[in-house]
Amino acid sequence: MNAETDLPPSAALLGASAHASTEFGERVRVSIDRSGYVPPSLPDGVVYATSIDDVVNAMKLASRYNVPVVPRGAGTGLAAGSSARAGEVVLELSGMNKILHIDPVEQLAVVQPGVLNAEVNAAAATHGLFYAPDPASTAICSIGGNVATNAGGMWCAKYGVTRESVLSLRVVLPDGRLVVTGRGTIKGVTGYDLNALMIGSEGTLGIVVEATLRLRPAPIQTATVAAYFPDVAAAALAASAIVAARLQPSVLELMDGPTLEAVDSAKGTNHRSKGGAFLLAQTDGYGAFLEQDVLIQTIEPFATHIEKAADAETAAALISARRDAIPSLERLGRVSIGDIGVPRNRLADVFAGLEDISRRTGTRIFSVAHAADGNLHPMIVVEPEESITEGPAKVALGEMFHLAQRLGGTLTGEHGVGLLKRDWLQEELGDVSLELQHAIRKVFDPQGILNPGKAI
Amino acid sequence: MNAETDLPPSAALLGASAHASTEFGERVRVSIDRSGYVPPSLPDGVVYATSIDDVVNAMKLASRYNVPVVPRGAGTGLAAGSSARAGEVVLELSGMNKILHIDPVEQLAVVQPGVLNAEVNAAAATHGLFYAPDPASTAICSIGGNVATNAGGMWCAKYGVTRESVLSLRVVLPDGRLVVTGRGTIKGVTGYDLNALMIGSEGTLGIVVEATLRLRPAPIQTATVAAYFPDVAAAALAASAIVAARLQPSVLELMDGPTLEAVDSAKGTNHRSKGGAFLLAQTDGYGAFLEQDVLIQTIEPFATHIEKAADAETAAALISARRDAIPSLERLGRVSIGDIGVPRNRLADVFAGLEDISRRTGTRIFSVAHAADGNLHPMIVVEPEESITEGPAKVALGEMFHLAQRLGGTLTGEHGVGLLKRDWLQEELGDVSLELQHAIRKVFDPQGILNPGKAI
Repeated sequence: MNAETDLPPSAALLGASAHASTEFGERVRVSIDRSGYVPPSLPDGVVYATSIDDVVNAMKLASRYNVPVVPRGAGTGLAAGSSARAGEVVLELSGMNKILHIDPVEQLAVVQPGVLNAEVNAAAATHGLFYAPDPASTAICSIGGNVATNAGGMWCAKYGVTRESVLSLRVVLPDGRLVVTGRGTIKGVTGYDLNALMIGSEGTLGIVVEATLRLRPAPIQTATVAAYFPDVAAAALAASAIVAARLQPSVLELMDGPTLEAVDSAKGTNHRSKGGAFLLAQTDGYGAFLEQDVLIQTIEPFATHIEKAADAETAAALISARRDAIPSLERLGRVSIGDIGVPRNRLADVFAGLEDISRRTGTRIFSVAHAADGNLHPMIVVEPEESITEGPAKVALGEMFHLAQRLGGTLTGEHGVGLLKRDWLQEELGDVSLELQHAIRKVFDPQGILNPGKAI
Repeated sequence: MNAETDLPPSAALLGASAHASTEFGERVRVSIDRSGYVPPSLPDGVVYATSIDDVVNAMKLASRYNVPVVPRGAGTGLAAGSSARAGEVVLELSGMNKILHIDPVEQLAVVQPGVLNAEVNAAAATHGLFYAPDPASTAICSIGGNVATNAGGMWCAKYGVTRESVLSLRVVLPDGRLVVTGRGTIKGVTGYDLNALMIGSEGTLGIVVEATLRLRPAPIQTATVAAYFPDVAAAALAASAIVAARLQPSVLELMDGPTLEAVDSAKGTNHRSKGGAFLLAQTDGYGAFLEQDVLIQTIEPFATHIEKAADAETAAALISARRDAIPSLERLGRVSIGDIGVPRNRLADVFAGLEDISRRTGTRIFSVAHAADGNLHPMIVVEPEESITEGPAKVALGEMFHLAQRLGGTLTGEHGVGLLKRDWLQEELGDVSLELQHAIRKVFDPQGILNPGKAI
């Protein structure tokens, strides 16, 4: 394919782009995300976009020469949604990393897709505002990827996921045309909701080149509680009791004992000595501390030990325990991160099921959960040389999905389907829905050049 | 067309349906909604559905015989989205009016589309829960119609619109196939968001036959304030000040002087004597009264008179003033209800623009607004015999839209496009977006038999 007479289609795109690379190191870097999946081959090269025009031009060339393009942001995806292989060109958007505008009165931010989630929050904070979707990876993940996966995070228990915080998008279609979805107002119902359709579409319908984000008032007060329980079953019951008590925590994170151990070992903390499972809860607003009192009364019967964070620093340390979970586990081996969702009152059942799966498949499973919306991240850790897409890890991942489904749940709460979870998609969505979705994909991408083989 | 040899296609559908009518009175009733629009002719008849099977069978027949079908709920639409005319058959869903299931622990309700919004809230209230989207028409509008228009209401300032409260839908496609959109969990990102696509699609993509609604904990406390101002400009500034102060009222309703007069005259109240414009604000949660204090401090500089509702009964009376606005105006003539949205800090500008439009077109315009999300309902009242789709009313409606657009806003916040606003759609959405939307419509409805001519 390298002979002058027999160039691959990608050569036309790579050759005509001002900023592109076919270096081996770059091709290796952009072939993978943080899912643990290693593709069978390397992409042909990378095009680096720093402007909307760059993306428009790249897609015009890609559609002219029929080159499959994989959009890539910060590369922190957990479902191999931006992994790439031979024949494909990666379109790297991390260079489009400017916050274009913050409107503190209207409470919105206009940003490029490569801006990191934490950067938006830092800029918003200077105006007493915040951006609600806050994945655990906030410091390293970009807004474009957040939109692609409809990312959630800790605060979405109360404030909703990415879909609830994106007012409008500018999107380059696979043929290079630019379209605006959504609008600059809070409400609106002109035409179909293409904005919501784009959010969570994992880079298969268009490339987000600008996002207008809704910011929210930073809570006037925030109260933080860390509670320890004998085991996950007790912690899950406490979480369900919080929902049943009609409390509205802004954060309700659950971690199991093995994950606490991993964090302790990586960070020198001593969580595991206080209990076999952990709940981090925050309440906020004008009544934060009143609501916290009720929350503590609600969980006391289940807990072995409860701490109130007396100051912001202690609260931040408790939150970072949760944010450190995945990096800490990555020190133990290759991590395959589950992302199942179940009805909120089935948390105890799902933990029991996970223990059973771990025992039967002989895999090590560590779990954290966004307990207030029933979204769990059971993490299978294998040896560095083991694959997560075959063998016991794959079996365990499939059983997790069936467990979620049996409990009325879903395959993925906030990480996306990517390549990793496609095998179970049909079972969850059914034939009619999938047929509609493939037809919609074809409306946007008749040539099938945008992130082929991913999501649906 | 009535000769045995030359029956219209609708006859096959009507003839084969167990429950159908071609009575003149019924055809008149279902030809209109509450928009004030009177179609040029009457539909051929009505099919009454009381089960999913009824809808499936009707659509199978409709697609076989190529009969245009107009889905209809409670008939309270405000954009002629369910108006019907000759050649069309109305599929009436108001008979599918059961609440199938309330799950107080998981906080959700499974309902048929003909259930009234207020009925859901009444059922939820017995469990200490509520359903957040609450259009002013809550007592008479149905959930199916709420989904069709992505309805908002007073509480959506804090709790979001219909899209944020519908977890899942069962939908009959135009060819009679049944599909499920969304899921039973709070979060999920398997496949494209067909659920959001369906919400606000005004009955053009499928017929909603069952909805799983998210309920929320009823606030532990609610504080109500009624404030009066010299004029709408002052009230609008007060509303913007509330947003800028980063308060989060659950209700923030604005009414202008002429609307207050109309309510007073219909209901024997005396709002207009207290001021030339009115703001109704509620704060809720554990800190409701603390937040109320800050809210009152924020608006005091603008107000002439402020009342706190000391009890639930007084609060309910103040809220009903807002709910009574449209019925009160309907006593004055035929009402054309605008539904524009603008950025929240442009409220004062939009009121100034509306006064100008009223003066120049010689129309009477009354305004109420969901002030916290910049959604206004300027209502043009014409004589009973006048048309709202031609003459000064039509000119004023067009100018309203251009005003909203000039201020960065939208044609419709929560009522939908229907038939009435199609003329301005292209201007708001642009060619590329409209092209995508028409192609999506074709994916769902290749024959073009579902609510033809509406929405897009």
